[in-house]
Amino acid sequence: MAEGRPDLVVGVDLGGTKILARAVEPKTGTANDRVKMKTPAGPAAVLDALVTTITQVDGWSDAAAVGIGVPGLVQRGGIVARCPNIEGWDHPVPVADELTERLGRPVIVANDVNCGVVAEHRLGSGRGFTSLLAVFVGTGVGGGVIVNDHLAEGDRGMVGEIGHLTVEPGGRPCGCGGRGHLESYAGRAGIEGEARRRAEAGGPELLVELAGGGPIKSRHLATALAKGDPTTLELLAEAADALALTIGNVATLLDLPRVVLGGGVVDKLGDPFLDEIRQSRRFGGFGPDIVELVSAERLDDAGAIGAALLAAERVGALVEA
Amino acid sequence: MAEGRPDLVVGVDLGGTKILARAVEPKTGTANDRVKMKTPAGPAAVLDALVTTITQVDGWSDAAAVGIGVPGLVQRGGIVARCPNIEGWDHPVPVADELTERLGRPVIVANDVNCGVVAEHRLGSGRGFTSLLAVFVGTGVGGGVIVNDHLAEGDRGMVGEIGHLTVEPGGRPCGCGGRGHLESYAGRAGIEGEARRRAEAGGPELLVELAGGGPIKSRHLATALAKGDPTTLELLAEAADALALTIGNVATLLDLPRVVLGGGVVDKLGDPFLDEIRQSRRFGGFGPDIVELVSAERLDDAGAIGAALLAAERVGALVEA
Repeated sequence: MAEGRPDLVVGVDLGGTKILARAVEPKTGTANDRVKMKTPAGPAAVLDALVTTITQVDGWSDAAAVGIGVPGLVQRGGIVARCPNIEGWDHPVPVADELTERLGRPVIVANDVNCGVVAEHRLGSGRGFTSLLAVFVGTGVGGGVIVNDHLAEGDRGMVGEIGHLTVEPGGRPCGCGGRGHLESYAGRAGIEGEARRRAEAGGPELLVELAGGGPIKSRHLATALAKGDPTTLELLAEAADALALTIGNVATLLDLPRVVLGGGVVDKLGDPFLDEIRQSRRFGGFGPDIVELVSAERLDDAGAIGAALLAAERVGALVEA
Repeated sequence: MAEGRPDLVVGVDLGGTKILARAVEPKTGTANDRVKMKTPAGPAAVLDALVTTITQVDGWSDAAAVGIGVPGLVQRGGIVARCPNIEGWDHPVPVADELTERLGRPVIVANDVNCGVVAEHRLGSGRGFTSLLAVFVGTGVGGGVIVNDHLAEGDRGMVGEIGHLTVEPGGRPCGCGGRGHLESYAGRAGIEGEARRRAEAGGPELLVELAGGGPIKSRHLATALAKGDPTTLELLAEAADALALTIGNVATLLDLPRVVLGGGVVDKLGDPFLDEIRQSRRFGGFGPDIVELVSAERLDDAGAIGAALLAAERVGALVEA
């Protein structure tokens, strides 16, 4: 294998629509210009596109390793079992092994949300804590856990599925087929589903009206909230309660001094929403006094940079540097 | 500092009534004869007693390190903030630093339940899994978490307080002052409290009668269950539901293939109780299909041996061996 500069790693964010790659200095998080490319359909074309993108990165020839964040289920050894947002990726592909061979450098593959958590821990709002939970509240609810300064990794690539923790046994239907999961109360799609169910049952329809023919977006929630819409107030109070119960429980179990919250819903609703979580009467475990809730720093390219940091750590580049 | 055999470590279980110490080979868990001593009152006397006990252990002069499991809140750096079961230990004592100086060997201090979890992970029912949750259901409910093959450690010595995760916001009062915590439904004391409340309210009194003037013990639960007592059936179903909700959620968050259950209540009620947890309709997260529930192996001296394994790991004795 080629030997690169141990202080330079290429980080890649593989998204449903675009691939983004850049060289990163893991010690500082400093990154050079990004290379972008459209994400093609099918795993084989995606692998080709990844090779093209990565080898175009300025500094590639010096890089010691590559880290790739992917929007899917990543099993041990960098096997990507499925990527719901990439057409035709419905079967396991050994991405790490194939690209390690083609690129002649160690390639590390991880879930993109987990990469974002690593970036937030090393460079963002989670700096300085040995343990951390990050929760991203968007269409769904995802997250990741840092324990003993390292990203928690499960055996089956599903670690951090905080959106599927049960907050109300037998409660609202969840997209996964379960019931009463956090995501069905706090995720944008879960809130939308409940708003539409209530509207269909004859309740007030402000959110549905604001959305027009499209989805109810985070900004519609913010607008309806500003207007004092009772349904929106109630749905967001339930979202805050669900987050408070889950976050309090995880913070108690893992003794977390801080939890970082990000994602579209949190970004659009801002501090008042964090306050509603903090003040929830359903806050779990030892309660809000033991854990500080802060916004994510919304790091630029957190996925690509987090992937690079993770790769640097795993191949020991930082240690050798 | 004296240099010992890197393959020999002294493990100590500091209990409320007795101190137990023995030399352990961390690679195999093999331990020699134990030295026992009564636990005296007050931290100063306990430290003296620990030195006496440890230096009497066969093999002490060769040992590379000492690990001590204590029944209290252990902060970073081996400071024991409090030990409710040891008279007069209501203020922080830097146990690790003091004993390291007096013994001339690295001394590692950890919570005794966490030591038990390490033993179960390395030598018991958790062998072979990189992540693990162990839950001990006794008077209260305690536990510990292994992530990436290492014991999860918080900043404040409270990691593993699974008994204080909320299962029912606003629910039963918990000994900690909170409400609706797992422990108040599944712990022996929580079950006893509810049984007595129901009896005082005029409900059936079998459990209270079986206990006579003393506490309702796990064996009384088993007896009442065997007699088909409706109150006991109901209380244990609620206990199983609370455990199922919490265990399912934690297994989902951390992607755990296996959870180990131990402690007096689990031991006395046996497999039928584990089945009741597995079949609970309130099982949390992705449900019982993703996680296997197994009994702890009830390792002999799990506390002392776990403490030794933890010490060996932390001082790198295994690596040097």
